[in-house]
Amino acid sequence: MVYKKVTLIGRSTESFDDATDNAIDRAQETLENVHWVEVEELGVEIATAETREFQAEVTVAFQVSDTET
Amino acid sequence: MVYKKVTLIGRSTESFDDATDNAIDRAQETLENVHWVEVEELGVEIATAETREFQAEVTVAFQVSDTET
Amino acid sequence: MVYKKVTLIGRSTESFDDATDNAIDRAQETLENVHWVEVEELGVEIATAETREFQAEVTVAFQVSDTET
Amino acid sequence: MVYKKVTLIGRSTESFDDATDNAIDRAQETLENVHWVEVEELGVEIATAETREFQAEVTVAFQVSDTET
Amino acid sequence: MVYKKVTLIGRSTESFDDATDNAIDRAQETLENVHWVEVEELGVEIATAETREFQAEVTVAFQVSDTET
Amino acid sequence: MVYKKVTLIGRSTESFDDATDNAIDRAQETLENVHWVEVEELGVEIATAETREFQAEVTVAFQVSDTET
Amino acid sequence: MVYKKVTLIGRSTESFDDATDNAIDRAQETLENVHWVEVEELGVEIATAETREFQAEVTVAFQVSDTET
Amino acid sequence: MVYKKVTLIGRSTESFDDATDNAIDRAQETLENVHWVEVEELGVEIATAETREFQAEVTVAFQVSDTET
Amino acid sequence: MVYKKVTLIGRSTESFDDATDNAIDRAQETLENVHWVEVEELGVEIATAETREFQAEVTVAFQVSDTET
Amino acid sequence: MVYKKVTLIGRSTESFDDATDNAIDRAQETLENVHWVEVEELGVEIATAETREFQAEVTVAFQVSDTET
Amino acid sequence: MVYKKVTLIGRSTESFDDATDNAIDRAQETLENVHWVEVEELGVEIATAETREFQAEVTVAFQVSDTET
Amino acid sequence: MVYKKVTLIGRSTESFDDATDNAIDRAQETLENVHWVEVEELGVEIATAETREFQAEVTVAFQVSDTET
Repeated sequence: MVYKKVTLIGRSTESFDDATDNAIDRAQETLENVHWVEVEELGVEIATAETREFQAEVTVAFQVSDTET
Repeated sequence: MVYKKVTLIGRSTESFDDATDNAIDRAQETLENVHWVEVEELGVEIATAETREFQAEVTVAFQVSDTET
Repeated sequence: MVYKKVTLIGRSTESFDDATDNAIDRAQETLENVHWVEVEELGVEIATAETREFQAEVTVAFQVSDTET
Repeated sequence: MVYKKVTLIGRSTESFDDATDNAIDRAQETLENVHWVEVEELGVEIATAETREFQAEVTVAFQVSDTET
Repeated sequence: MVYKKVTLIGRSTESFDDATDNAIDRAQETLENVHWVEVEELGVEIATAETREFQAEVTVAFQVSDTET
Repeated sequence: MVYKKVTLIGRSTESFDDATDNAIDRAQETLENVHWVEVEELGVEIATAETREFQAEVTVAFQVSDTET
Repeated sequence: MVYKKVTLIGRSTESFDDATDNAIDRAQETLENVHWVEVEELGVEIATAETREFQAEVTVAFQVSDTET
Repeated sequence: MVYKKVTLIGRSTESFDDATDNAIDRAQETLENVHWVEVEELGVEIATAETREFQAEVTVAFQVSDTET
Repeated sequence: MVYKKVTLIGRSTESFDDATDNAIDRAQETLENVHWVEVEELGVEIATAETREFQAEVTVAFQVSDTET
Repeated sequence: MVYKKVTLIGRSTESFDDATDNAIDRAQETLENVHWVEVEELGVEIATAETREFQAEVTVAFQVSDTET
Repeated sequence: MVYKKVTLIGRSTESFDDATDNAIDRAQETLENVHWVEVEELGVEIATAETREFQAEVTVAFQVSDTET
Repeated sequence: MVYKKVTLIGRSTESFDDATDNAIDRAQETLENVHWVEVEELGVEIATAETREFQAEVTVAFQVSDTET
């Protein structure tokens, strides 16, 4: 019955929307019952990326099943 | 002469930019003299939406006329 | 399609839960489609109250209809 | 019995005190039972004002009567 | 020797205390050595719940054993 | 004529309301003219308490008399 | 050798500057070695005051002597 | 060996991504060794712009060479 | 086309308004196109000043020309 | 391609640096590809520790592989 | 049964750890039952110190006995 | 007469104290009249550094002379 939140940072060479989508995609590959996402921070990595890398740090809330925390 | 601020949450299946635009559109339908908008929070609703719904919580600043508060 | 948020401070001589409920009750008397509430601040007024008055400042999010902002 | 809070930005060419006063004046023209005010932000507008314009963003708390929210 | 913190959102139709308790109950079913809990946010879900659902977002601190992170 | 604020953490095995009340009780035993209280943080101590201990960190505002600071 | 900080709320019917001064005056009546002051919050009390009462919540830093904390 | 951070506000009639890009473009015209960017605030200017102007306030971190601060 | 922000602390023995004005005066002596100012912090220096020194930390936003960052 | 962040609290009887190091050591025992660490809070536990225990709450960012979240 | 928190600023020419220790030392000279310490701010004073002075602003939590607040 | 603040990130393979010192050293090579420093953030870079690199983001306050901003 409880929700749990985890923090992911999605990355994209396209846009902040795409970076956010990538984080949600990743969450949904391994988690069921993802309910909502909150954007915590937006940034752009330049020095270690080939092109500008948009990053979106998000918290993902999902409903935990009875056998995990 | 004073400004007033109200808080709206725009929603879009496309992008955060579009969600922000939708909130401003709504404000301008019912308010005159909208001056600026500040983004307070960005999020994505998943569980109760058919597809991912981008949400932008914004505060809208507008100049109040002499007969309203 | 957009949500709007308003800020209310519910008051109760019983508890913070009750103060929160009173704010929601008030919102639902005059607003349709209240969706969720966030607690912003909790406090207790003592000097101007007969007994301790629990206060809950909340923001109330509701879906705006087509004729209001 | 509940309080409501609205956000206004008072403006003055004189001082922050005066900008705050102007916001309260405006609130009291249209609202009864204003109880207190909290200063949220202070700023000065320069580019679009003839002289420096002091601005005080305040939240105004007032007791709502039985027929409004 | 280190502590780890996870974020859970407890839910209850009764009260914020009960929502907090439910989050701690869930944590203790799957985690040993829970040390303390910090309340991060309180809210009430209305639109998708049958009755008002009190929610308490908490971070749970527990001592990690030697074989997990 | 000035107010002073002190920070107390009330504790209770019952509820956050009760923890808050205990902090106010303690303040009023040694301070006159307590005016209001703001809740700063809520938490639950588990590891060093026999049962879960609800804690409410509050700031207590009181009017200082002419002979103390 | 250490500094200590206490929180006071100065009050004035004139201005925020005056409210701040009143808090510092009060601090210096009972404390030696006041070093600096930080403004934490500004507000205006209306309902329980005859005229608008400007309030400045400040923290006062002072050097503690060897016999007090 | 140290990094320095400066604050820029990029502007665009297209999108927040584009406003961010414009700020980074400007930084890279005059600064070498830009490493990363953090988004501090997003907003939309309406009253003084022909069309809606998206604005992204960012801090730009760059490695300082030996002859500047 | 971008704005830049710098942080200054204005100082005055008179008032916070005057301290803010002094910071803006200084900015306008060396920068063209100052657009607006945000107050970040207010304080009073006592120990190292002859009389109380009001300080206003502000960020100054100005439009950068094509040859500087 | 995404990063994940977890929150750990390192502990040391020596220093905050050492407490931070201990949290990173623990992270690297069980996680590959740790990229960076942000310090969230520093504190000292006294009552339940034999000697003063320095604590550093940090968030650890690491690149998630394709089979975990 | 309640805790109280006071704010001290420890100072050291050596390190932030040492500045924190000095604040705790001072607290324990005059207070019994100090339970824990939270670091609020770190800084370095340069202009009025002979050498760089590390400063650690901490809040000290201690259990109040039955005869003090 | 005004102060200006700039943001630097000092780096060290030794400690946070050393990272802070390095930022101050760099500031004093190019700026006169550095008055104080505030620590904004502490972190550790791991992925792109040979060994763990302690980083201290600080704001440096210095008195501006009559010919610069």
